[in-house]
Amino acid sequence: MSTLFLSKKDVRSLLNIADVIKAVEQAFKDWALGRAKMPSKAYLVLEQGDFRAMPGAIPGAAGMKWVSVHPQNQPLGLPTVMAIIVYNDPATGYPLAVMDATDITAYRTGAAAAIASKYLARKDSHTLGIVGAGRQSYTQLMAHGELFDLRQIKVFDRRAATVETFIKSFPAYSVRACSLEETVDSDIVCTVTPAREPFLRSEWIRPGTHINAIGADAEGKEELEPSLLKKAVVVVDDLRQAAAAGEINVPVRNRLFAVEEVYGTLGEVIVGKKLGRKDKQAITIFDSTGLAIEDIAVAKLIHDKAKKAGGYLSLDFV
Amino acid sequence: MSTLFLSKKDVRSLLNIADVIKAVEQAFKDWALGRAKMPSKAYLVLEQGDFRAMPGAIPGAAGMKWVSVHPQNQPLGLPTVMAIIVYNDPATGYPLAVMDATDITAYRTGAAAAIASKYLARKDSHTLGIVGAGRQSYTQLMAHGELFDLRQIKVFDRRAATVETFIKSFPAYSVRACSLEETVDSDIVCTVTPAREPFLRSEWIRPGTHINAIGADAEGKEELEPSLLKKAVVVVDDLRQAAAAGEINVPVRNRLFAVEEVYGTLGEVIVGKKLGRKDKQAITIFDSTGLAIEDIAVAKLIHDKAKKAGGYLSLDFV
Repeated sequence: MSTLFLSKKDVRSLLNIADVIKAVEQAFKDWALGRAKMPSKAYLVLEQGDFRAMPGAIPGAAGMKWVSVHPQNQPLGLPTVMAIIVYNDPATGYPLAVMDATDITAYRTGAAAAIASKYLARKDSHTLGIVGAGRQSYTQLMAHGELFDLRQIKVFDRRAATVETFIKSFPAYSVRACSLEETVDSDIVCTVTPAREPFLRSEWIRPGTHINAIGADAEGKEELEPSLLKKAVVVVDDLRQAAAAGEINVPVRNRLFAVEEVYGTLGEVIVGKKLGRKDKQAITIFDSTGLAIEDIAVAKLIHDKAKKAGGYLSLDFV
Repeated sequence: MSTLFLSKKDVRSLLNIADVIKAVEQAFKDWALGRAKMPSKAYLVLEQGDFRAMPGAIPGAAGMKWVSVHPQNQPLGLPTVMAIIVYNDPATGYPLAVMDATDITAYRTGAAAAIASKYLARKDSHTLGIVGAGRQSYTQLMAHGELFDLRQIKVFDRRAATVETFIKSFPAYSVRACSLEETVDSDIVCTVTPAREPFLRSEWIRPGTHINAIGADAEGKEELEPSLLKKAVVVVDDLRQAAAAGEINVPVRNRLFAVEEVYGTLGEVIVGKKLGRKDKQAITIFDSTGLAIEDIAVAKLIHDKAKKAGGYLSLDFV
């Protein structure tokens, strides 16, 4: 037996947003039906940054994402977030592949949000507003573009150059730089910032809007005014992770929002245990924290494709 | 920057028990002095086996061992236990190396036991008794051979062929197949079995003996009669891990032994916070569960050696 080694370049050549959306939707289903396993993340917190071990298994696949977050990396020319997945055969434990997971993380995050929009946004959604035009925002547009007929995309970021780069990257779409307030006046809004103070005001959001709250993925992070949560239908990817580190974590801690007010998980909506959007006027919010099973589902996809295509580096490793 | 990929063969060519002993002893020191970090292991439990994520950091090194345990692998020609370490730069998170960790695990376990013997066994120890002659026992002999003048080594295993293979592997030593009772009549005893029922009877152990209890590394595993713990000086590698999964886990659960009866950690003994052997007649026991920081210390050693030697596979991975 041998282990595949897939670099960033290899993984990028094998990633395709349509396939990722399918794989991630299936992972959410498996999770809701009790066919997936996902123990709590283990955090290694050091002086200059932290590391997270994210183990997970879905039917036929197991593995672990090991991801580092080092906020001071930029001047060194290194990404803030770097990730590796060890992908194993669940039946024997054999490490079938080791792969860069930086792009996998971005793709599965975009896919999860677009899947949430598919079930929670209005069917006639045609405008997409993206707040924060960094690395994780690109896959928001790619994934939503796959599932929706996007006629207008609005982007806001405090850094004008970042917005410009973003717009140039999508020549096939009608993307426009807007103010924050204009941007969130959209059918679907994705907030993708590292904010620790809520910036999205409740009064700006029209009835019928769906919001994907992507940014908050650690204790203390928060993008939306808590009053917005109160009047919305809130769906999470995982209740335990959302309460600990997602968009709802600060309001829950401050007793401005209760865990019991969460409507359900995305998996429950996908498998029909909970209904998706019922009311054209409702505001819906998807609180995305990022699940290990999303990563493992995409790792399986990449491994299987690489195996089938052949020509990738493979070694007798273990 | 690039990532080193070190296969089982590469790692084996770089492993040296004397260096491993030094690195592991330093890791225990760092742990006792609060200079190391080691969050709880994360367990992914599946039908055919389980996986453990073991993150850890020592000064200048960070990483994670991802280890699988699949008891039914033998008929498939695969090892029961397979492990990979992702070794990172703690300052940036960059994955400096990905390496097979199967041999690293065996070497660091042997080293930890020999270090415990160095501080807890009588200085005039010349006989070593090894119970269980499987994979993990080889490094017990190698590491003790490094630190002690071993004149006689006794081995017991229920499988005669396993004993024979073991003896043949050490032509430079005087190794003899013995009964269980004869084997544990030694200055230093290492128990290295997957037992779930205590087999080592208290009455067999002479005053002045030091025992390394290696086998128990999961809930329900136990090698020594609890009455032996009661009359011995018990030192653990880590109190939390030992109480949950080490030799003391079953007696603690059955209230036959209290966590408070543990004398101290090996790190405390090494740095002098606690004295080592004080009395020639005392029975001492080291309860080894295996620490992530031991793995990271050896990973650093291997990475640094490979880097210096050059010629190993290195890729622009992340």
